[in-house]
Amino acid sequence: MGKTRLEAFSDGVFAIAITLLILDVAVHPPGSPLAQVINAWPTYVAYLISFLTIGGAWIVHTALTDRLARSDSIFLRLNLFVLLAVSFLPFPTRLLAEGLGDRDAERVAVTIFGLTLLVIRLAGLACDAYARREDLYVSPPTVTEASPGGEDEDDDDDELRRSRRKSLGAVVGYVLAILVGIGLPAVAMAFYLGLAVYLIVPFREIWQLMTRPPTKA
Amino acid sequence: MGKTRLEAFSDGVFAIAITLLILDVAVHPPGSPLAQVINAWPTYVAYLISFLTIGGAWIVHTALTDRLARSDSIFLRLNLFVLLAVSFLPFPTRLLAEGLGDRDAERVAVTIFGLTLLVIRLAGLACDAYARREDLYVSPPTVTEASPGGEDEDDDDDELRRSRRKSLGAVVGYVLAILVGIGLPAVAMAFYLGLAVYLIVPFREIWQLMTRPPTKA
Amino acid sequence: MGKTRLEAFSDGVFAIAITLLILDVAVHPPGSPLAQVINAWPTYVAYLISFLTIGGAWIVHTALTDRLARSDSIFLRLNLFVLLAVSFLPFPTRLLAEGLGDRDAERVAVTIFGLTLLVIRLAGLACDAYARREDLYVSPPTVTEASPGGEDEDDDDDELRRSRRKSLGAVVGYVLAILVGIGLPAVAMAFYLGLAVYLIVPFREIWQLMTRPPTKA
Amino acid sequence: MGKTRLEAFSDGVFAIAITLLILDVAVHPPGSPLAQVINAWPTYVAYLISFLTIGGAWIVHTALTDRLARSDSIFLRLNLFVLLAVSFLPFPTRLLAEGLGDRDAERVAVTIFGLTLLVIRLAGLACDAYARREDLYVSPPTVTEASPGGEDEDDDDDELRRSRRKSLGAVVGYVLAILVGIGLPAVAMAFYLGLAVYLIVPFREIWQLMTRPPTKA
Repeated sequence: MGKTRLEAFSDGVFAIAITLLILDVAVHPPGSPLAQVINAWPTYVAYLISFLTIGGAWIVHTALTDRLARSDSIFLRLNLFVLLAVSFLPFPTRLLAEGLGDRDAERVAVTIFGLTLLVIRLAGLACDAYARREDLYVSPPTVTEASPGGEDEDDDDDELRRSRRKSLGAVVGYVLAILVGIGLPAVAMAFYLGLAVYLIVPFREIWQLMTRPPTKA
Repeated sequence: MGKTRLEAFSDGVFAIAITLLILDVAVHPPGSPLAQVINAWPTYVAYLISFLTIGGAWIVHTALTDRLARSDSIFLRLNLFVLLAVSFLPFPTRLLAEGLGDRDAERVAVTIFGLTLLVIRLAGLACDAYARREDLYVSPPTVTEASPGGEDEDDDDDELRRSRRKSLGAVVGYVLAILVGIGLPAVAMAFYLGLAVYLIVPFREIWQLMTRPPTKA
Repeated sequence: MGKTRLEAFSDGVFAIAITLLILDVAVHPPGSPLAQVINAWPTYVAYLISFLTIGGAWIVHTALTDRLARSDSIFLRLNLFVLLAVSFLPFPTRLLAEGLGDRDAERVAVTIFGLTLLVIRLAGLACDAYARREDLYVSPPTVTEASPGGEDEDDDDDELRRSRRKSLGAVVGYVLAILVGIGLPAVAMAFYLGLAVYLIVPFREIWQLMTRPPTKA
Repeated sequence: MGKTRLEAFSDGVFAIAITLLILDVAVHPPGSPLAQVINAWPTYVAYLISFLTIGGAWIVHTALTDRLARSDSIFLRLNLFVLLAVSFLPFPTRLLAEGLGDRDAERVAVTIFGLTLLVIRLAGLACDAYARREDLYVSPPTVTEASPGGEDEDDDDDELRRSRRKSLGAVVGYVLAILVGIGLPAVAMAFYLGLAVYLIVPFREIWQLMTRPPTKA
């Protein structure tokens, strides 16, 4: 079974979910027009976290499917589960916008938001685990003999392996933040923003970029 | 006539319809924020059924067009009819969410919902029947001589044939559930959920997966 | 300049516009739930006309771009104008749904609706005319020497030429219907529905299909 | 790292953002149905500016990625930043529609609108600057020896270079218009419309078209 349609359909769902988020961004009455726009700032933060999370999940998805040699019936359904989680995210994002200023509503919204972020990561990890178990990935082009890692770590190229390690760390972070968010929703939101930024910023590449002269000097 | 644009446009409509569903998921006042979220649970069930139905219809669609050797003017229009049914589904899903708690509205919404699910399947079967009649499918790569089935069953590979058999069973199920739903909407919804799960879960592949050791042991 | 991105972007806009239409379909209070659903029937008709119009415009678009050998800067912008008209259609469709039952609002909505349908066709014809003038089309694979038509008619294959002739007829029809619709909006809507069906149904292929035995008898 | 998925995902976001704009176009009560439609004219202007801006940004994006030989981790994230700005545009477009007739709300909306237009251009320029710095572009097919320009200008073909020059001019224009718009929102909107038209109209090609006979005379 090919992967072209899988990629096209997934790209479509990611693209739509990330673009629909803006529909739930709205000003926050009462007050002057300027005050309404400014008071809605937590809505923009939620929008940004959701945008970065879906964008990050898309990047992980491309890294994963780029490595796929083939797909199968079960992988197709696991992938659909990733898309279910991703396309659900606009709902908790809207809950956050609507619950603004009501402490109980904020706690409920932040918890559902965090659970959705967690499920997006878990669904991605499940796809990855299944693809490894069923040998759906192409063999890595060059396996360094002297690689100190075990069997699992040799299996994939750097991009995918690093994304996997980041994801596992993120799962732990999300679980902690969900628990914190029940009592302190604002703290959890700050943590989700930090985690989204951490997950999407390619620190190593930026470091490499900054410590060497430009290609064309 | 090629099938690339047909696939791209169809993937787009499936992806958008499946992602738009979330726009009609909303909390259900009155009550505390938590109670509003919990009381909306039938909305989530409707969302899930619709998501699984569109996801399942997309999988059937890929199985069908993967086998297409070419398309023609009439197939293009029949395919548009599938897309009409699929992109209509957000409307009855919204009716279900809005009718929550009003028994008459629920009965109307569940009936329209069931009819839409039925039409999605029928439209897919019509495409399939036309493609077989007009010989639009590629010949199956290997036809087992000893195959006990008749002419029709030899015609296609396993994936498509099994999806066809599942669809025919689903049509009977939908008709029964629509009739039941006029009197007992909740029973019909439970049935639609069960049918959506039955249609999308690849039981045979999961069975194969569970009864053999992993590829890389 | 290639045409892959042009097709991908256009397919996206067509797919989204056709799927967004459902967002403006809504029941029509007051009355019982069933009455509200039934009283909204003109909304469904408007939805169907818009769906068929965008679907038909997409089919014309594929026939046109399939024949393109290349694109250029101006064609890219003319194509964007087609997409502007297509993605505007959900607005008059919503006006029709909202204006239901208010005679003045209906007349305004039907007129704007008709003008949009007209502009969609005109924009498509402008693209086609530009592509012919600038020789962007590939040469037809086989030009029948004995073809009785003039230079223009030899230029393109049957599909494109027939779609062009249908479009020119449609333009005349739309202009008349817009004028009629100012006084008699319901008559204009019936005409738009008829025209949408006429434009999308491949009469010749259906006739061929019905007058010959199936391929595999 | 390939660029196919980058293009597919970006095309999706551009196509969705440009099509979602219509959701925020609405009539402007009070008054007769016709008056409501006519009084909403500034909404249509905002819709048109946003449509042309996203359409123009998409054309710049295709010119840029057509020239890409490859992508990398950082380019992928910079591109995501372009998509963030583009998919944010429906929000200020809606603010403009909602703020109609309230002078304070208009000033706030026009300012946020202008800032978004500015950021879309800046994000595009950042992608372009990074691609040049990191040598991601393919070498130009033919470098004219006698080209009077410096190193930077020889680097890219005409389309990309001209789009870059237009963008730099637009940035200056946007900054001025944002400042003007704080006091005179209507003047700024007229300027944004003019700039959108200027950025998207291929004056040189139209001039060439008008000063030579058609290809097939």
